[in-house]
Amino acid sequence: MNLHPDYLLNEINEPQDLKGLSLAQLQQLAGEMRQLVLERDSAIGGHIGPNLGIMEVTLAFHYVFDSPHDKVIWDVSHQSYPHKMLTGRKLGFLDPDHYGDVTGYTAPEESDHDFFEIGHTSTSIALAVGMAQARDMRHKHENLVAVIGDGSLSGGLAFEGLNNAAKLKSNLIIVVNDNQNSIAKNQGGLYAGLAELRRTKGQSENNLFKFMGLDYRFVANGNDLAAMISTFQEVKDIDHPIVLHVVTQKGAGYAPAIAEPERYHWRPAFDLTTGENKQPAVKESYSAAVVDELIRQVEDGIPVAAITAAIPGVFDLHRFEQRFPDHYFDVGIAEQMAVSSAVAMAQGGIRPVVFQNSTFLQRAFDQLVHDMALNDLPVVMIVRNGTIASGSATHQGSFDISYISSLPNVEYLAPTSVEEMISMLRWAIKQTETPVVIRQPEKPLLHRPATQDDYSMIDYEIAHQGSEVAIMAVGDFWTLGEEVVAQLKRKLNIDASLINPKSVTNIDREDLHYLQERHDLVVTLEDGNLSGGFGEMIDRYFGATNIKVLNFGAPREFADNVPADVLAEWYHLTPEQIIDDIERVLHTM
Amino acid sequence: MNLHPDYLLNEINEPQDLKGLSLAQLQQLAGEMRQLVLERDSAIGGHIGPNLGIMEVTLAFHYVFDSPHDKVIWDVSHQSYPHKMLTGRKLGFLDPDHYGDVTGYTAPEESDHDFFEIGHTSTSIALAVGMAQARDMRHKHENLVAVIGDGSLSGGLAFEGLNNAAKLKSNLIIVVNDNQNSIAKNQGGLYAGLAELRRTKGQSENNLFKFMGLDYRFVANGNDLAAMISTFQEVKDIDHPIVLHVVTQKGAGYAPAIAEPERYHWRPAFDLTTGENKQPAVKESYSAAVVDELIRQVEDGIPVAAITAAIPGVFDLHRFEQRFPDHYFDVGIAEQMAVSSAVAMAQGGIRPVVFQNSTFLQRAFDQLVHDMALNDLPVVMIVRNGTIASGSATHQGSFDISYISSLPNVEYLAPTSVEEMISMLRWAIKQTETPVVIRQPEKPLLHRPATQDDYSMIDYEIAHQGSEVAIMAVGDFWTLGEEVVAQLKRKLNIDASLINPKSVTNIDREDLHYLQERHDLVVTLEDGNLSGGFGEMIDRYFGATNIKVLNFGAPREFADNVPADVLAEWYHLTPEQIIDDIERVLHTM
Repeated sequence: MNLHPDYLLNEINEPQDLKGLSLAQLQQLAGEMRQLVLERDSAIGGHIGPNLGIMEVTLAFHYVFDSPHDKVIWDVSHQSYPHKMLTGRKLGFLDPDHYGDVTGYTAPEESDHDFFEIGHTSTSIALAVGMAQARDMRHKHENLVAVIGDGSLSGGLAFEGLNNAAKLKSNLIIVVNDNQNSIAKNQGGLYAGLAELRRTKGQSENNLFKFMGLDYRFVANGNDLAAMISTFQEVKDIDHPIVLHVVTQKGAGYAPAIAEPERYHWRPAFDLTTGENKQPAVKESYSAAVVDELIRQVEDGIPVAAITAAIPGVFDLHRFEQRFPDHYFDVGIAEQMAVSSAVAMAQGGIRPVVFQNSTFLQRAFDQLVHDMALNDLPVVMIVRNGTIASGSATHQGSFDISYISSLPNVEYLAPTSVEEMISMLRWAIKQTETPVVIRQPEKPLLHRPATQDDYSMIDYEIAHQGSEVAIMAVGDFWTLGEEVVAQLKRKLNIDASLINPKSVTNIDREDLHYLQERHDLVVTLEDGNLSGGFGEMIDRYFGATNIKVLNFGAPREFADNVPADVLAEWYHLTPEQIIDDIERVLHTM
Repeated sequence: MNLHPDYLLNEINEPQDLKGLSLAQLQQLAGEMRQLVLERDSAIGGHIGPNLGIMEVTLAFHYVFDSPHDKVIWDVSHQSYPHKMLTGRKLGFLDPDHYGDVTGYTAPEESDHDFFEIGHTSTSIALAVGMAQARDMRHKHENLVAVIGDGSLSGGLAFEGLNNAAKLKSNLIIVVNDNQNSIAKNQGGLYAGLAELRRTKGQSENNLFKFMGLDYRFVANGNDLAAMISTFQEVKDIDHPIVLHVVTQKGAGYAPAIAEPERYHWRPAFDLTTGENKQPAVKESYSAAVVDELIRQVEDGIPVAAITAAIPGVFDLHRFEQRFPDHYFDVGIAEQMAVSSAVAMAQGGIRPVVFQNSTFLQRAFDQLVHDMALNDLPVVMIVRNGTIASGSATHQGSFDISYISSLPNVEYLAPTSVEEMISMLRWAIKQTETPVVIRQPEKPLLHRPATQDDYSMIDYEIAHQGSEVAIMAVGDFWTLGEEVVAQLKRKLNIDASLINPKSVTNIDREDLHYLQERHDLVVTLEDGNLSGGFGEMIDRYFGATNIKVLNFGAPREFADNVPADVLAEWYHLTPEQIIDDIERVLHTM
């Protein structure tokens, strides 16, 4: 049910409907849309500060320009809620029954006003330059507006985009949305320069954008709707690239979001009155256990450094930072920098631990190959969000086993429990032979003892020794493996073996040989893509033998906002489906 | 035999030996070392311009600083020949018999004066920042000098490095070696800013480095040895990060290299007198055929754009640029930008074709995943250097099948011949459904007709229909496949089938089903890593069947400057070894 049938927003079906409105009416819309951001995000979780801060820029864009003829490209697009409300998708914000109709990022399937599905940072200028080149080749003249936050500017691709934007001899409007925040605090010298530009109201002679040959204009208050409108009117149809340096307030219009910008950058569902999360915090987490261990190590005199690229919160790293600020490095949104600097720290005798999400670590793939693996330096990494069920397709975390396990010299470990994870972490930090990546389980925390403490030779854990069928359950698919073994016993009276392979890169050849003697079928279960995954390594190992192998994981596709249980059904990952497949194969033997 | 027993360089066994020399003697060394660069490179090929230009910077560094206590980190390290000559490796330049002892990049195995094995650009500042952080954590105070070319500055990681360098409160000396060239011409607005700094002798108020809070000093002639020495003396032991903007001449001291900087950036062996290549140019090449086809397409009115990230030469793209400058885009050393802008051009109705080496494309992995694959836009890519035998481990091109074929929505095609490649290219440009990557064969050009012209459904080419054993030979391993089939017939009287699978991402299920009926063993041959490769896809397909599969390709390791024939032997890739393995498996059946 539409919670606000009285809202003026109900009259806005497309941006054209804004054109006749007065400033007061547009400001009324801003207020309504702020309320809708809060209502939706508090109900189902979402980005708050970025959407509140960008409200007036969005309204002004759609008031002045002619979307989708003129085009806006949002960086990360986590600030595109107001844009969505004004481009035919208001019901996804007005009516809780329709919250699910609209994703949290731009989505070309939803609207002609969206051009890319985006969820990673620092891409908007590069994309807009490409669109401008395409437009110029087609001899067209529409306006192109790229919006990028100051936080996203620290990512190298943003700089590559600026550098190439300067080559254009045609229209491009780059809105640098300077809200003085990254996801966490801004990091680096760039922000001294931006601060000086803010202090001098854009008058400082020293200007990164002008240095690169770009035209530049300063807007002191991007939350001033009238000012934004007149600025856009002045630059509309400009015949060359220009940077609008627009100062906005992250979380504008909502005091709690202004006071705690990192907490309100993205929040899970919360109570709008009390501000408390609706889901109580979990008592134990893998992240907390890792930070506890790192703190212990530093206390013991081990020169551990913790490195993040702007996402300390999801790894509980603020606790580490507070305790050992000199051992903590946030490089800002700069994933490549995080890996390269960690490699160098390892070279310098420090024990660096890089914390990264699977979906963001892929932004440093060359640094994993060329800097880390080739130099074979003992970097340690903790990888989160390595799972099939990652929510938004923009943040799909199912590729890491494939892109990491194919690298020489790297040991990629997949613990099944918190005890095993800490055991692996201790070994990873202690040894100095090789880079070690540890895949943090995404499923609820499990307690199981580790069965080895030196992982330089992988020794499979054979948790149950059976025959005929062997289940190899990787990392957080361990409980799925247990369930499959139990149901095989119950339903088919098969006494299957259950194995924890621990590593997705290295094989315990002795145990695999033993498997071969007592089993006809090996089944692999992994929370990731099948293509290039753990299962295929096992397939190859047994390729020329009589052992049959069945692999379970995700097919080569993106899944956008599909609930985990639905996904499991789609991907044949329920215990029942797995057992059906096993039964079918056994019947052919 | 040492060609120059009379050289002063013979006296220099380590940097300490420079300390007592006069300026005249140091200048004599510079002259000798220039001659040695030319002698070695003309004999075996190598980087010329970068090494000639950096001569005085290198001598000054080792004269002033105390290596390896003080440390220099070279970007790309293709300019490290003089450094190598001064750090115990002079014989690798004086004596042709020892040319092979020394690689073309820094190599920690060769010397304590090298800290990383490096061959990709834009990493040196990030690495030096990591080393500085490690040093500071250890409460040490050695000097750290990062050298980076102006061309490398356009890569995003360089900017991420500068941004984080500004956070240091300790020594870091960043030498921006401004020779006004990238591999090809510099690209982008950054170079307008650098030019203004050069014009004003560093006095311009607008200064990217100062903008980021970095100290800055301008050196007008970095080939003036005395000036470089006094500059280094002045900044030695500085207690904060500083950028030395040093203007040098690429190719200094050798007129042909100054006149043709791109040709003399890296050259294969050539005649020092005539300047001609020792190996005559091949008459036909895949690159030329591709450019011919693109020119035809543009002539036919197809809105094709060719995109490179600073390596037009290896793809024969200058010819395309000259013909259709408005259809040609060199984004500079900015691999991420190349892919993201191509994605946007595809969105804008252009048919972008990205030209990239396997080893450099991995620098844009997130753009392949998040921008290209997720948005499923019809970008076309030509990938070169996808081979096991890539020469330097820093440029190993054996990972692309793994990192590309695991991506959703992407079709990765592997032609066996020039006709098939052009046929695939035509289809790739014509269709607008999906991103298509084409793996350019690295082996000598082969002529074979294509057997299909629409690759939306892969139809395996069964070049020979036999039984018992089926050989699936991917791309440029086609001739290896032919040889294996011939020898199987000759030696074992086995009439093996020979199949061209065409795609490393998609399977012809009908033909695989047929294979299964007539064969007991499938053998895959691919010029790439086994881990995550084509073979494993086939392993998985047949995993639960009675068909046995044997995979041939490279193990998960780096190979540094190993000749192709030696590598083939190591990796069990000679026809004889393959047939032995086949025979062994057949005996167990």
